[in-house]
Amino acid sequence: MNAPPLPVGSADIDAAAAVLAPFAVRTPLLSPPVLSERVGARVFLKPEVLQRTGSFKFRGAFNKLSSIPTSARAGGVVAFSSGNHAQGVAAAAQILNMPATIVMPADAPLSKRERTKGYGAEVVLYDRDREDREAIARGIAGKRGATLVPPYDDPMVIAGQGTVGREIVEDMIALGVEPDIVIVPVSGGGLVAGVATAVKARFPKAMVMSAEPEGFDDHARSLRAGKRQSHEAKGRTICDALMALTPGEITFTINSRLLTKGVTAADADVAAAVAFAFRELKLVVEPGGAVGLAALLAGQIEARGRNVVVVLSGGNVDADLYARLIA
Amino acid sequence: MNAPPLPVGSADIDAAAAVLAPFAVRTPLLSPPVLSERVGARVFLKPEVLQRTGSFKFRGAFNKLSSIPTSARAGGVVAFSSGNHAQGVAAAAQILNMPATIVMPADAPLSKRERTKGYGAEVVLYDRDREDREAIARGIAGKRGATLVPPYDDPMVIAGQGTVGREIVEDMIALGVEPDIVIVPVSGGGLVAGVATAVKARFPKAMVMSAEPEGFDDHARSLRAGKRQSHEAKGRTICDALMALTPGEITFTINSRLLTKGVTAADADVAAAVAFAFRELKLVVEPGGAVGLAALLAGQIEARGRNVVVVLSGGNVDADLYARLIA
Repeated sequence: MNAPPLPVGSADIDAAAAVLAPFAVRTPLLSPPVLSERVGARVFLKPEVLQRTGSFKFRGAFNKLSSIPTSARAGGVVAFSSGNHAQGVAAAAQILNMPATIVMPADAPLSKRERTKGYGAEVVLYDRDREDREAIARGIAGKRGATLVPPYDDPMVIAGQGTVGREIVEDMIALGVEPDIVIVPVSGGGLVAGVATAVKARFPKAMVMSAEPEGFDDHARSLRAGKRQSHEAKGRTICDALMALTPGEITFTINSRLLTKGVTAADADVAAAVAFAFRELKLVVEPGGAVGLAALLAGQIEARGRNVVVVLSGGNVDADLYARLIA
Repeated sequence: MNAPPLPVGSADIDAAAAVLAPFAVRTPLLSPPVLSERVGARVFLKPEVLQRTGSFKFRGAFNKLSSIPTSARAGGVVAFSSGNHAQGVAAAAQILNMPATIVMPADAPLSKRERTKGYGAEVVLYDRDREDREAIARGIAGKRGATLVPPYDDPMVIAGQGTVGREIVEDMIALGVEPDIVIVPVSGGGLVAGVATAVKARFPKAMVMSAEPEGFDDHARSLRAGKRQSHEAKGRTICDALMALTPGEITFTINSRLLTKGVTAADADVAAAVAFAFRELKLVVEPGGAVGLAALLAGQIEARGRNVVVVLSGGNVDADLYARLIA
């Protein structure tokens, strides 16, 4: 009995790679000796902090926007996001000459708000605890004839993020190394869905794992339960980028099939990972982007002796928070 | 009339590359769109912050230590350095199983002292204003039968640093791009001498420039005068790694032949470049490592429309200074 085909395949990611090639940064695959020695494994980093806009989100956004028919482009795009998707959509819209409106929580990091405006987007703020960002975005979309760009639950967005995995595969093949474990920070699950699609197509034995902040572990729970579960966190995490309540529908269709399990890291371990990246790796990583590295450094993953790839998904962090984290 | 051969040639750098290959990081060549757009040029970065020990210094140190005959290795090595050379020598000695003693100024950044000890070296502190570090190092070398590892004025050290230039050349050839300008942070001149040797061998029309902190401009002066000059700075600069008083003898023999000119950047521009690298490039760069980027961003270089390579030479900066620089 064959399982039904998944909503995104390797061919979709190949197509996204061609669309992205002139505009996205082809980020390198790094393998810092200091990290491999520390973990007792051969560790590779995919630093999406070096991507245009400082996170992987540009990839999915640009692929999605490029798929909007010319006739619908004048209406522009609208998106809701705590920050990195906002910048990705704004930067993609700027390149493609489309107006962009971004609905952001009023407590999003200032740097992410400012940078979003810097790409020429209009920013509309909402109250995270009292207002429904999706309803606000849909209202704007209806009024202006704009296309809503979902942060993760969309095949074109997932295919765009999948180019991260495609590049990992290319570079691992060039190195002649087979990945045993691939760890990806997760909020709605778009990045890990795309990465898993690309990685498992070439390395079916690789274990792809989602990484989430402790408490905000809806993917870990959902993967254990075999169906979408919400997390039960009441408060906040320093991983402002990773606060989605449940996995996406489309993303979980993929992730429930391709992921091995979900791991988590406590905020203190995330802070330590951000500081380690500053001190030893010389990479600026935001808390949410460091959650996979944190899980690895904190011993949450059986890595010893294995080939481990860790995605550093973003580096947009306010200077004052960063100063506290590295102190 | 042919000029006499220089003390380091391409073949020496090729040999160093072979020695370094199993141990040094092959750092990528980056080209962040945000930087190219800002400068109005096609800008490439060689991020030696990603090198083992967080600076290019590992390259020259490892090449030099590898050249010490087996019979002389038990005596170990001794070096004097404000920080990055210290770590380079200590890390190279650790890999090669040689004892290392490092003479460091008492006011060197704490992180550099601690990291040097972390590589297993013995650290001896001296007073920068009252003691002669070279005399102290020679004393230790004589007493212990240790080999003195000069920070820059040595052909093996220069050849090791030259592998930075060799990698730039390889990557530019792969990209099909010819560099017009190559900017390199300079203290004693070892890195720029090696880079210029490699770059000019393949791209003779490329203009290689030294970058120094304003006031500490002994290379800029010497290149203008055609002979070694001291700088006249009385105080300090935030570029703790770039305080050499005069160019080296061997390095200046090379640099006076190969370099186009020297540029400088004020401490305020260096601070702005460190902050730009944090905010936009997501790379941790120490002040001395950012002086070339600072000169470029501050408009000290006629870059518009050109292909410009900037070496980011190191990223070892104390967290408290870094927090102030990015605030």
